[in-house]
Amino acid sequence: MKARVVVTLKTGVLDPQGKAIEGALRSLSIAGIGSVRQGKVFDVEIDGEDRDSARKTLNEACERLLANTIVENYSVEIA
Amino acid sequence: MKARVVVTLKTGVLDPQGKAIEGALRSLSIAGIGSVRQGKVFDVEIDGEDRDSARKTLNEACERLLANTIVENYSVEIA
Repeated sequence: MKARVVVTLKTGVLDPQGKAIEGALRSLSIAGIGSVRQGKVFDVEIDGEDRDSARKTLNEACERLLANTIVENYSVEIA
Repeated sequence: MKARVVVTLKTGVLDPQGKAIEGALRSLSIAGIGSVRQGKVFDVEIDGEDRDSARKTLNEACERLLANTIVENYSVEIA
């Protein structure tokens, strides 16, 4: 079973990498982009077919390793 | 208008970061995860309400800055 975990910075947390990308887009004359915030995505292959237990495993993985829950949010989508 | 760009490694391209995460999950005794591949996500705020032109702008941003299209795929979702 495939799943995707997306980890993004919480609102209000500064994102210098996103700001750098905004500046780079501007210097490439790519217009119309207001703001950019960068995050991480993890494409995960899960053993078994039980969606509930897969979600539980992934939530635990996020809490303990993939996300810093002080400054980051995470979302789990199971395909 | 909000959009999300996801950049992932192409199939077959080695992903040492993903492998390291697999190892770390195993040492945390989080079982049931087969493989992990890491990518990047960009949450973008676009000026204007024209979805077609937003998609065009984001495709250009991906081709020229956000993705290395030799080893990475990108997908654009407009909210």
